[in-house]
Amino acid sequence: MAYYKDLREYIAVLEKNDLLWRIKSPIKKETELSPMVRWQYRGLSEEDRRAFLFENVTDLSGKKYDTHVLVGALAGSEKIYALGMGCRTRDEIDAKWTQAQRNPIEPRLVQKGSAQEVVYTGKQLKELGLDIIPFPNDIPGFDGVIRTTTTNFITKDPETGAINIGNYSGYVNARDRIVIGLGTAQHLATHLDKAREQGRPLEAALVVGVVPAVSFVSVGKVPYGSNEMAIACGLAGEPIDVIKCKTVDIEVPATSELVIEGKISTTEVEYATGSFGEYTGYMAEKEIYPIFDVTCITHRKNFIYQAITSQMPPSESSKIRQIAYENNMYKFLRYDCGIPGVQSVAFHESSGSWQYCVIQLKKRHHSEAWQALNCAVGYSAGIGKLIIAVDEDIDPRDPDSVNWALSFRMQPHRDTRITMGKIAQLDPSTLHPASERADRRYPPPTGASAIMIDATRKFDYPAVALPKREYMERARELWEAEGLPKLKPKSPWFGYTLGYWPEEYQEAAEYNLRGEITKLGERTRKERKPFTLD
Amino acid sequence: MAYYKDLREYIAVLEKNDLLWRIKSPIKKETELSPMVRWQYRGLSEEDRRAFLFENVTDLSGKKYDTHVLVGALAGSEKIYALGMGCRTRDEIDAKWTQAQRNPIEPRLVQKGSAQEVVYTGKQLKELGLDIIPFPNDIPGFDGVIRTTTTNFITKDPETGAINIGNYSGYVNARDRIVIGLGTAQHLATHLDKAREQGRPLEAALVVGVVPAVSFVSVGKVPYGSNEMAIACGLAGEPIDVIKCKTVDIEVPATSELVIEGKISTTEVEYATGSFGEYTGYMAEKEIYPIFDVTCITHRKNFIYQAITSQMPPSESSKIRQIAYENNMYKFLRYDCGIPGVQSVAFHESSGSWQYCVIQLKKRHHSEAWQALNCAVGYSAGIGKLIIAVDEDIDPRDPDSVNWALSFRMQPHRDTRITMGKIAQLDPSTLHPASERADRRYPPPTGASAIMIDATRKFDYPAVALPKREYMERARELWEAEGLPKLKPKSPWFGYTLGYWPEEYQEAAEYNLRGEITKLGERTRKERKPFTLD
Repeated sequence: MAYYKDLREYIAVLEKNDLLWRIKSPIKKETELSPMVRWQYRGLSEEDRRAFLFENVTDLSGKKYDTHVLVGALAGSEKIYALGMGCRTRDEIDAKWTQAQRNPIEPRLVQKGSAQEVVYTGKQLKELGLDIIPFPNDIPGFDGVIRTTTTNFITKDPETGAINIGNYSGYVNARDRIVIGLGTAQHLATHLDKAREQGRPLEAALVVGVVPAVSFVSVGKVPYGSNEMAIACGLAGEPIDVIKCKTVDIEVPATSELVIEGKISTTEVEYATGSFGEYTGYMAEKEIYPIFDVTCITHRKNFIYQAITSQMPPSESSKIRQIAYENNMYKFLRYDCGIPGVQSVAFHESSGSWQYCVIQLKKRHHSEAWQALNCAVGYSAGIGKLIIAVDEDIDPRDPDSVNWALSFRMQPHRDTRITMGKIAQLDPSTLHPASERADRRYPPPTGASAIMIDATRKFDYPAVALPKREYMERARELWEAEGLPKLKPKSPWFGYTLGYWPEEYQEAAEYNLRGEITKLGERTRKERKPFTLD
Repeated sequence: MAYYKDLREYIAVLEKNDLLWRIKSPIKKETELSPMVRWQYRGLSEEDRRAFLFENVTDLSGKKYDTHVLVGALAGSEKIYALGMGCRTRDEIDAKWTQAQRNPIEPRLVQKGSAQEVVYTGKQLKELGLDIIPFPNDIPGFDGVIRTTTTNFITKDPETGAINIGNYSGYVNARDRIVIGLGTAQHLATHLDKAREQGRPLEAALVVGVVPAVSFVSVGKVPYGSNEMAIACGLAGEPIDVIKCKTVDIEVPATSELVIEGKISTTEVEYATGSFGEYTGYMAEKEIYPIFDVTCITHRKNFIYQAITSQMPPSESSKIRQIAYENNMYKFLRYDCGIPGVQSVAFHESSGSWQYCVIQLKKRHHSEAWQALNCAVGYSAGIGKLIIAVDEDIDPRDPDSVNWALSFRMQPHRDTRITMGKIAQLDPSTLHPASERADRRYPPPTGASAIMIDATRKFDYPAVALPKREYMERARELWEAEGLPKLKPKSPWFGYTLGYWPEEYQEAAEYNLRGEITKLGERTRKERKPFTLD
């Protein structure tokens, strides 16, 4: 099956799959739009979530925008993400991610694209510019910025030309100026630093409303230097058509809904206008950031503006990051580090899909747990504060299952280590929010920390204490015959052995099944020992 | 309202409240009974769980027992526990627990009780004894013991006479002999040690089928030396009638369904017949235990045998322990240690309500977090492997909420400490299961360990990144007007401040609400700084 040609084809498929709500009532972008979408993350279960297409967006005065606003269409839920990948299951998503990272496909340069149906430069740009876009206010009452959220910044390494696509928040400071919410360890920072060395600004294009594959890669963390547009084509399973920008030397997807071209200054930086909500669930500090001066805006006729709900997890932002980071880390540990026992990686949305990482292992040797923990903690300076290794029978995505492993498969003094040198990014736990930004991000002298926990079994364990499968199956028949409520079995629902199950225990279990346990009591009576309380 | 006079009155109330299933079909005690009940813990949500009354229990050959078996009636769910306490809400349960621990009530000794309607001694005891009871096989296929589970052992301190009621598993080795699954740090062990010093056995009574208050206290961990029957009366809110046993100097509830009297040897110990499932979710080692020689059995006419589902959490055992331990620890920290900021304590069922403990604080001073953590880890040698302090806006019972706090309110190197000297009880993580029991319980030379984590805020934090309440409320109206699916709001569902919210941020938020953020962009343009990536 061919991949989506553009966002509009994808929206039609979302709707066909009952994964889209069209909102035709007038909705105010300053106070109503984001809170309405927010409710699905604070009030619905994940399987009930959908994308929203707002067809009548107004400002406070009631003035209507022609532009429709699409929210939640990338990762409102795992089901939506799967559709964006052209997959049906989480396993298919993961297989495609691994395939794409290991086998990138080059994009195809074409001459013309719908992304440039309408072009604003010069006077028109000065007079209208970003005012044509009905940006929603994400956190009414607290947010002191207007933010672009599905904003895929495309830049090239000034030395190698390797393409980076990164999802960085853009804060709109003027109709022709955006400041870019850039973290220290992010790849765009390296491009900027190289451009600064060359004494020139960095050209960039910010694209909105692209096929999902591009957005999925944009959020991911692949190693520096990877051609990220080629990984996006890998996810799409085919080359994506790209066109040259009008005013900068950057190629963008030919069917983008909206392209904002410009140059990032390497001589000055500027504050965002205020505080803004972040993936941590807290408002972030007003900071100084690189300045993106807009040189040209192009868009499709009747373009659709796309946004992501971020901030307090779970949200669309924690879901889109979760699936990308899980696959990025899995590919790194399994293939780049070559640890064969790694089964899967889970980033918990409660941590913004950033801090709490669980690695599921089928260990071939005990050392694999620490190899995986040590590599994982080093993968990114910013990602992973609690990193936990578990066995293959633990569900790494279920916090109760992980807590069961922490409770009974590790000893803190033996199985935990703390390491330093991590960057705290927006994590507010390091220093008071009014401290210097550099100190908050990397508290002197050795930075923020991470804890690694090996919660795998260190030796053979006794069996899991549930009835054997055959008895649970028989009991389910009895349960249903009695007309008791419908069961949704939670794993594990039967007992299994974990390496240690002596013959003697099996013998006793069999006596017991025959109702003859007191016969064994005759034996234990003969084996008595002197009294002890040890 | 007067408390329940006996188990039968309580069963009637359970049924009236749609919290009981009567199973009239023949159910085999060896292979069917426990797996059937088990399904409600592996396949239903907690609010759908009920107690089971099996009215036609048979053995493998189909022989029917007169005795009915009651399971799940104490703590099949929090709702059932509440009913057993005569409460409607969790807050009422907690208030009653605190009241009872601080204001015990003496039981009332009466001359006669239904518990002694039928008496077995001498020849009858030898010939029938425990065979009259249809003990279920808890884990068919793995369990190599027959276990008593709601078994409240009542003993007296040989020196002070203080009454201990403890729920210890009894393993039936013969129709007149039970070995007692006793942990090193448990109170019965102290009684036994003192009896050994006096050169005599310890008298004991095992009571089954009592009013819930007695079972609730039996499971709890109150400090050594407390009169536990008086705490049970405190929970009941009135004196419970007790009668003297026939063959030992012990008083038991007058309306007990079943009383097993006997003496615990202080000269010999005996193995259990096999391995058995434990609260950890694993099979435990076959061990040597104290021997309880039965001297007399008494019961009500048509007595009901009561059992608890234990082993893999969540189960009835993890729920009954959870509520008791939470209240025991809360009372200790709040009143005995005098830490005013302690709001509540949560033991997670995923840890068997034993290892993973969260303390919710409204700190008056930062030191309270560590005072609470240090006291909590010392409270019991066996309880608490991961102990986490959180703030008052974190839900200590929701693992995602706790993981959110761990992700963004602590730094591992600064906010965690590991301590030693803990007893691992049945936690299999210390040493290989074939190692010496004493070494597994207390690995040489310094025992098992616990980790304490202060996940409270160390300074003022920025606001929580959700829209202010008024905007979420307005959006809910829009949501409902659109006919979107019914919302179940999850806390927090609106943003709130946490001490740090500068005037400047508030000003920007207000510009933003008016759609005028680019006016502030004029100001930020004038405040530019030289380029930096720090």
